[in-house]
Amino acid sequence: MPESGFRFVLRGTDGGARLGECRTPHGVVETPAFMPVGTQGAVKGVLFRDVAAAGVTIVLGNTYHLYLRPGDGLIGRRGGLHRFIGWDGPILTDSGGFQVFSLADRRVITDEGAEFQSHLDGSRHLLTPERTVDIQARLGSDVAMVLDECLAFPATRDEAAAAMQRSLRWAARCRTRLESLRAAPPPEVRMGTPGQAQFGIVQGGVFTDLRRESAEASRAIGFEGYAIGGLSVGEPIDQMYDVVAATTRWLPEDRPRYLMGAGTPEDLVECVSRGVDLFDCVLPTRNARNGQLFTSQGRINIRNARYAEDDRPLDPACRCYTCRHHSRAYLRHLHLAGEMTASALNTLHNLSFYLDTMTRIREAIAFGTFDSLRQELLHPASRLSHDA
Amino acid sequence: MPESGFRFVLRGTDGGARLGECRTPHGVVETPAFMPVGTQGAVKGVLFRDVAAAGVTIVLGNTYHLYLRPGDGLIGRRGGLHRFIGWDGPILTDSGGFQVFSLADRRVITDEGAEFQSHLDGSRHLLTPERTVDIQARLGSDVAMVLDECLAFPATRDEAAAAMQRSLRWAARCRTRLESLRAAPPPEVRMGTPGQAQFGIVQGGVFTDLRRESAEASRAIGFEGYAIGGLSVGEPIDQMYDVVAATTRWLPEDRPRYLMGAGTPEDLVECVSRGVDLFDCVLPTRNARNGQLFTSQGRINIRNARYAEDDRPLDPACRCYTCRHHSRAYLRHLHLAGEMTASALNTLHNLSFYLDTMTRIREAIAFGTFDSLRQELLHPASRLSHDA
Repeated sequence: MPESGFRFVLRGTDGGARLGECRTPHGVVETPAFMPVGTQGAVKGVLFRDVAAAGVTIVLGNTYHLYLRPGDGLIGRRGGLHRFIGWDGPILTDSGGFQVFSLADRRVITDEGAEFQSHLDGSRHLLTPERTVDIQARLGSDVAMVLDECLAFPATRDEAAAAMQRSLRWAARCRTRLESLRAAPPPEVRMGTPGQAQFGIVQGGVFTDLRRESAEASRAIGFEGYAIGGLSVGEPIDQMYDVVAATTRWLPEDRPRYLMGAGTPEDLVECVSRGVDLFDCVLPTRNARNGQLFTSQGRINIRNARYAEDDRPLDPACRCYTCRHHSRAYLRHLHLAGEMTASALNTLHNLSFYLDTMTRIREAIAFGTFDSLRQELLHPASRLSHDA
Repeated sequence: MPESGFRFVLRGTDGGARLGECRTPHGVVETPAFMPVGTQGAVKGVLFRDVAAAGVTIVLGNTYHLYLRPGDGLIGRRGGLHRFIGWDGPILTDSGGFQVFSLADRRVITDEGAEFQSHLDGSRHLLTPERTVDIQARLGSDVAMVLDECLAFPATRDEAAAAMQRSLRWAARCRTRLESLRAAPPPEVRMGTPGQAQFGIVQGGVFTDLRRESAEASRAIGFEGYAIGGLSVGEPIDQMYDVVAATTRWLPEDRPRYLMGAGTPEDLVECVSRGVDLFDCVLPTRNARNGQLFTSQGRINIRNARYAEDDRPLDPACRCYTCRHHSRAYLRHLHLAGEMTASALNTLHNLSFYLDTMTRIREAIAFGTFDSLRQELLHPASRLSHDA
């Protein structure tokens, strides 16, 4: 049976923070790392050249969207997602589960899988654990995620336990399917990236004993990495941090931990300190399009009238294209004028801020100064910090 | 009285086609040249870095839009349009007249000027010849345009003659105002670019005797360059070419000729052959956003199903970022998915195609092979040419 082409190397720690490397079939990702979201095969508003220039090494693709349009079959025939979108670096795909659960009244969940209606044309689809493995195999991402059942917050303990148990049954089926593809892929499932890894997902809501049970059962199945799912969905922030800390404790040291869907710059540093290695979030890109910008001095809402005649860059400490070439006054004008160039420039900046933050985090772990960086990032010294 | 910092040098001809150089306070523009439209201080969907990489040397700004938002006062206080938008190269601004005339029932034209209601908030404004000179002086463009009265096609001979005569009266007032600013700018009009040039505009509709009268009267006033206005507004294409040829005949050899608002790649080559040096048009950028792409093999409508699994670049002969990195299949997907990255990639390509075409035109004039290039550009050998 072919091995996974994926390997995680833990290179050092500083308190709970970990410095590592994910070696994937398409290159190395130094961790802790942040993955921007490229839902439909593009990071909204920017070119992959600029994504790379911002320091991004791995991007996330959404299986739900790509499956519906242009279709995993079409992408597979093009040689997989990397070739189709023109991004040579590592790609992680989610399972599609989260988007399906977000469809609310247009989906039905059973043990078999999730039946749903497309948001595009109302067509009916059944997403099973086996099918999400097949779809992601055709997409050829470097890391595929198992199908899990996501819950909104708040959920009762019984609801959280039931969803967690179902997620474990689905995870086992996903693993079995991937192993069967690795051993002998059927003609209809050409694996775009033969060394594709698969991550399990720990569920259990805010109940730490359920999280422990889910983590241990996931380890028993055995994956190349483990995600923490079902957080950043509305629970109080301190509770999220507690659940993260309670979950990483039960995960193996020698596998990467991926916190799904978080978060703010503060979330990144707090969860790195609790042992998380990988993050994804729409926040830097979506906020950029809305004119909400992250800077070393706090957040900026570029619509604010105080920036109308402000000739300074967004962030004097930033070296991104936007900060080297343009003023707050210009960015405010473009945003208010509805120019799509505003989204492009703002996205470049926010991505750079996130990626620079991850670089600083990795350097601080390497030098044993993570805790002082953490204090600095949590308390930016500026009057700007309440602007947004 | 300070001189204009603008100078045109005619370097050679090939038939009616002219090879030249516009030397402006912000750099040299080799002509024939195409100016992309940066209406509100940005070329829609792309960064100025990419605009420059496509070969653009001069961009057009729309005075109407910039006057209303963010305002010529604000831009002037920022040091002028170049510094405000972060583009160091030459900029030409129109007078705002064309946009005001497009407001149809929300404007009243008298000899004094054009009174109009803002499309943004309904506020009332009066654009006079003197005011458009002042506004463009504050913007600090390298080339400012006189205010002219534009007519829709068809117009009667009397209408065309009246508008042409009024445009001449306005042109004379614009010249007087600029000369007074050059001699002693009042405190409220700081000239953003002291060597700013001013171009007259030849009107007269499709009536070649009116065009001659307008051209000769404009020469008598005396400008650093001459535009041909009021074309590409719906008249038959051959009539446009005839009027261009009939107009350039009466314009001085030693000043640049600028055909406003045209056109297609075919328009560029046909009008270069009739002695035009400068062009602007929204076509490459607007069509890009609509998925209409120009290639050396004809036009492509990227929505077309035939491109769904087409792994080729848009134009195998093109070296732009889009063609070097992405396939037609990917571009079609992004366009159908409504991703703004589609607009960015398509705009990069169309601009590159237009600018490459201008480079080829200049090279052909230099080598005396313009006519064979003209034949090639008018008859691309491909089955694609009727795709759009």
